[in-house]
Amino acid sequence: MLTLDKVFNAQTVLKSIIRETNVVRAYGIAPDCELYLKPENLQITGSFKVRGSAYKIAMLSDDEKKKGVIACSAGNHAQGVALAATKNGIKSLICLPDTAPISKVEATKGFGAEVCLVEGCYDDAYKKALELRDSEGYTFVHPFDDENVIAGQGTIALEILNDLDNIDAIVVPVGGGGLISGIAYTAKQIRPSVKVYGVQVAGAPSMYNSVRDGEIKCLSSVSTIADGIAVKQPGENTFRCVSEYVDDIALVTDDEVASAILALIEKQKMIAEGAGATAVAAVMSGKFDLKGKRVVAVVSGGNIDVTSLSRVIDRGLLNSGRSTSLLIELIDKPGQLKEISSIIADCGGNVTGVHYEKGNTESVNGCFLRIEMETRDFEHVNLITRTLRDEGFKLV
Amino acid sequence: MLTLDKVFNAQTVLKSIIRETNVVRAYGIAPDCELYLKPENLQITGSFKVRGSAYKIAMLSDDEKKKGVIACSAGNHAQGVALAATKNGIKSLICLPDTAPISKVEATKGFGAEVCLVEGCYDDAYKKALELRDSEGYTFVHPFDDENVIAGQGTIALEILNDLDNIDAIVVPVGGGGLISGIAYTAKQIRPSVKVYGVQVAGAPSMYNSVRDGEIKCLSSVSTIADGIAVKQPGENTFRCVSEYVDDIALVTDDEVASAILALIEKQKMIAEGAGATAVAAVMSGKFDLKGKRVVAVVSGGNIDVTSLSRVIDRGLLNSGRSTSLLIELIDKPGQLKEISSIIADCGGNVTGVHYEKGNTESVNGCFLRIEMETRDFEHVNLITRTLRDEGFKLV
Repeated sequence: MLTLDKVFNAQTVLKSIIRETNVVRAYGIAPDCELYLKPENLQITGSFKVRGSAYKIAMLSDDEKKKGVIACSAGNHAQGVALAATKNGIKSLICLPDTAPISKVEATKGFGAEVCLVEGCYDDAYKKALELRDSEGYTFVHPFDDENVIAGQGTIALEILNDLDNIDAIVVPVGGGGLISGIAYTAKQIRPSVKVYGVQVAGAPSMYNSVRDGEIKCLSSVSTIADGIAVKQPGENTFRCVSEYVDDIALVTDDEVASAILALIEKQKMIAEGAGATAVAAVMSGKFDLKGKRVVAVVSGGNIDVTSLSRVIDRGLLNSGRSTSLLIELIDKPGQLKEISSIIADCGGNVTGVHYEKGNTESVNGCFLRIEMETRDFEHVNLITRTLRDEGFKLV
Repeated sequence: MLTLDKVFNAQTVLKSIIRETNVVRAYGIAPDCELYLKPENLQITGSFKVRGSAYKIAMLSDDEKKKGVIACSAGNHAQGVALAATKNGIKSLICLPDTAPISKVEATKGFGAEVCLVEGCYDDAYKKALELRDSEGYTFVHPFDDENVIAGQGTIALEILNDLDNIDAIVVPVGGGGLISGIAYTAKQIRPSVKVYGVQVAGAPSMYNSVRDGEIKCLSSVSTIADGIAVKQPGENTFRCVSEYVDDIALVTDDEVASAILALIEKQKMIAEGAGATAVAAVMSGKFDLKGKRVVAVVSGGNIDVTSLSRVIDRGLLNSGRSTSLLIELIDKPGQLKEISSIIADCGGNVTGVHYEKGNTESVNGCFLRIEMETRDFEHVNLITRTLRDEGFKLV
């Protein structure tokens, strides 16, 4: 049974292992409300996950500790378990599908875990982990559906309530539901008036569907840039907890997540991973009624690889009109590029790419010109396209 | 005269205006030393600049305050002056060249300043600001060469020494020299054994040259991604201060700065602007003897526009072998793309761009194929190029 005592106990136990991340005021991200961030992306290992794992591991019996722990994850949970085990002086074994990126494997080893690469996908690695648990006596550390793991995540609510008075709402990313279960349970025990809202992505709405239908639902597939919360099925404990304590759950799109990542970079000088930015995305896009309220959005993690980050930024620039790509149909005669580029330059656009493409143009001598450029905003994009059209160019 | 009293006084005065940014331990960025960061990128306005301006403004006489202040800047100094003036309830006017990006103009207005756009370049805006000072009685707030501005920046040293014991060295970005003058003076007064090192970029080595030659030198031009420290000439006060209190100055390249920005993103989930990352760049690339030492690198600012950030990330990925672009000379016959793409796929490369280009190939039927891809590291790039060569392809 989850109790407030356990959460307080977890706070004491975790003191020497984790960082206490201080709530920070966020300006300019959501002007309608008084927004604060709980920056668990700055947590050691780059995610809140270490809290739950570390408390779970600390609570093991001496005999269990001697045998070590096992987990299955290619992400934040793996690193959390690895670090927590190392800090407790016990062995950890992490099962990963052999398709996992080298960087994740290396990071997990870097925190002191042994890694077992399993041929196949996540489900194969999971099966292997359970086998090894049974044959070798390891304790399996579940990423979310475990009372001590949930109690560990609940310490986040203690820190939030300690940092800030008169909070109206806490907004929390939801994958399997461990984080929000801990936060919602703890917050409601201590200050029942605080609203707790969950956020999932439209490409992985397992908890959303389950709560809506009043029973645990399993998704056949998930697809989102928020890979940290791409969970097919909520846990039994977490489903019960969320059903009881969470006030509402909303869905955000990948584009809304990308915009939130970008806003955190620009306004807060802070890197969030996709899953980590979902709560901010929900606040920014008005999924809950938060007008005039004092709100804490949990930024749950920051482990995004820079290649994805680069793509997210490019997407965010496009979505906010700060870059654009125009396809212009030309008659194949000299001087057109010159004319187009002077129009763009006069309008203040900054060309970053030019490609000629043959294609199915109206005239047999025609061709397409693809122009990529940096722009200020959508108004600026409109100015450029309007001017080009006024000068007789055909935009596709 | 700069005195320690003034710095302590500045600390008291600034309490209600600025954020105290806590020193954080940085793991995995510079394994040879015990590295901490002073994250002034998380300072209000996104840079340390507000400290100096706010102290300067607070020390004005009532009469001076009534008349208001003027400054000339398109960047962090403008925002610092604007916010400091607003918080002191006085008027601020910022002169900007009319070529300044809209975003900077808007940000400056957002902190409450009036903006005066001046036709021409920075020097024209500067001249206009001095004219307006003389005709309207505004007080000019210099970005660095002012004793009270320097005292305000010195508060950073007080916070560092308060946060951390037994520091061996503080590494500081250098533009005009206000930041390092304040830090070096303060640190040396309180703990003379602390080394203070300065960092400039190779594209703007004004203080470096001046100290080397023992007299103030002026650069005819500057060129760097670290635009925040692209200063042509140090100030008289700052030159004197740096000559007396700074132990050494080193230069870093733009590529070293880009790698530092990337490392701060990946390891610290933190955004730094070019100038802000120079101290970290110097530590990472071993410009000073810091082995085994306890070192604080000042991350002076985080105001990088996302378009530049996107370019820096792309550059950093290239520099670290995590993306690559190959140019392959082909004989123009069917099936070559298929063969090349299977080789790359077998080696684990992830193709992100393909372009055919006609060109001056050996055979008249030849063409060039440009392939862009994501890779793991340089070893991975080598594996792919070697395999392609072994299969008979000609890499240019």
